[in-house]
Amino acid sequence: MNLAQETVAILGLGLIGGSLARDLAARGSRVIGFDVDTEQLEAAQRAGVVHTVISDDLAPLSAATVVVIAAPVDVAPALLERIAPHLGAATLVTDVGSTKLVIGERASTLGVQRQFVGAHPMAGDHRTGFRASREGLFRGARVYLCPNALSSDSARRAAAEFWTALDSEVVWTVADAHDEVVAYTSHLPHLLSAALQRTIAAAGHEAQALGAGGRDMTRLSRSSPAMWRAIVSTNSAAIARALADCAAQLDEVRDMVARQDHDAVARIFTEAGTWSARIAPPERSV
Amino acid sequence: MNLAQETVAILGLGLIGGSLARDLAARGSRVIGFDVDTEQLEAAQRAGVVHTVISDDLAPLSAATVVVIAAPVDVAPALLERIAPHLGAATLVTDVGSTKLVIGERASTLGVQRQFVGAHPMAGDHRTGFRASREGLFRGARVYLCPNALSSDSARRAAAEFWTALDSEVVWTVADAHDEVVAYTSHLPHLLSAALQRTIAAAGHEAQALGAGGRDMTRLSRSSPAMWRAIVSTNSAAIARALADCAAQLDEVRDMVARQDHDAVARIFTEAGTWSARIAPPERSV
Repeated sequence: MNLAQETVAILGLGLIGGSLARDLAARGSRVIGFDVDTEQLEAAQRAGVVHTVISDDLAPLSAATVVVIAAPVDVAPALLERIAPHLGAATLVTDVGSTKLVIGERASTLGVQRQFVGAHPMAGDHRTGFRASREGLFRGARVYLCPNALSSDSARRAAAEFWTALDSEVVWTVADAHDEVVAYTSHLPHLLSAALQRTIAAAGHEAQALGAGGRDMTRLSRSSPAMWRAIVSTNSAAIARALADCAAQLDEVRDMVARQDHDAVARIFTEAGTWSARIAPPERSV
Repeated sequence: MNLAQETVAILGLGLIGGSLARDLAARGSRVIGFDVDTEQLEAAQRAGVVHTVISDDLAPLSAATVVVIAAPVDVAPALLERIAPHLGAATLVTDVGSTKLVIGERASTLGVQRQFVGAHPMAGDHRTGFRASREGLFRGARVYLCPNALSSDSARRAAAEFWTALDSEVVWTVADAHDEVVAYTSHLPHLLSAALQRTIAAAGHEAQALGAGGRDMTRLSRSSPAMWRAIVSTNSAAIARALADCAAQLDEVRDMVARQDHDAVARIFTEAGTWSARIAPPERSV
């Protein structure tokens, strides 16, 4: 896929959609944009990364060769339904949400399953809106691709080429496996950050009392309430399992501390260091 | 206190002690150093921030006007006992450990309570050793100062002036209150990071599957096993309480998710944003 020859429709110009628009505009794509929040859309236009606004009648959509839904996951299915009659030349219809089962099923019931391949770039942070977007956000990031059973070969190929052109690391999976994995690797960390914040606040301590480590660990609790409402509402069973698993681990750690088994405590840090050695190689010695 | 006129003994040249040595040397102090790990000591000498090595007979200690114990908290009390007979001109004897009750009690039983004011700079990260030290580590950081009942006025004044000269924010407290606060604001976040890492690993997922948020939340689990063994061994009751509180919060969050109360989930993120607004002002709008 030569991005300079594509017309890419981005529906939602927040942190992820806005960053996509920046990368695509920099690579010569024609970017057409839509957002119910006109402030985000106008900011993206002013930044010069959305070239044409998609009008409410959605007519400009028919020119898009790639369509990316970058709306919250609880809004994305309805948006897909709304745009389905207006898809013209699109080889690929995709999304960027944190959950893949609900949107994939909707693509099937709407009859756009041949063009549809869901995507989930593991990028972004606790901030939201176009103002938090930046070029290069997806560089080196893992992107899960979740085709339906009936996704066409050309849609699959287009999805892989699209993200590879943005320097992401493509990992193929299927929707239910994806939603189970990210319940642990992404959704749990966010909810745990919120649980930690509540614990510290309930004990009567202020945010200013946090050191660097405590600040790092509570940062995700400042993520968008609307986005997390949406994610939890589309993956509640897997997330509840992950939370229960984590509570069990926490009980084990508390038990080690309470029975003064300091060796066991040391061991969990040793094992954690080993587990994460591949993402954080040991630092250079003096 | 004019740091350029002080002779400061730093016992332990790791991340914290090494960073102290850098700041003090930059401000003109004469820094004399000691470490059972000669590699750390030699690195600090090569960096030019330790001017004289304290020999094993500890004779050079008698010239120190300020003595800082920067050893792990389970080693610090024995080290204080070893150096007590060699303290000569010192106005201030202090430490930089994460727990203050055990070391403060030892200062009293050793008869050095008049010179002793414990300190805990809320600075550092998951790394260890002199190679992780850096100038300016304490700038803007909160430093808890914990005098004993019998700490002299001159020791209290020296402790405040010492840390203020390093641009830290001094907060006075007492040892038992301190250890209770940091169980929540520092020790809990570290153990929670370890519990999260164990949960993800036990579910069969690899570190490479973590996004930016998951990486942030598991980073502290790579902290020094020996340091956390030491901290937990000197504050186990308060830490066990904090872990139990957090497990209860986690159960509540899991319950919200399991009963599909998405509004409640959104609300915890909203409340967390409000709580931390004073350490992270809302980002500038577009």
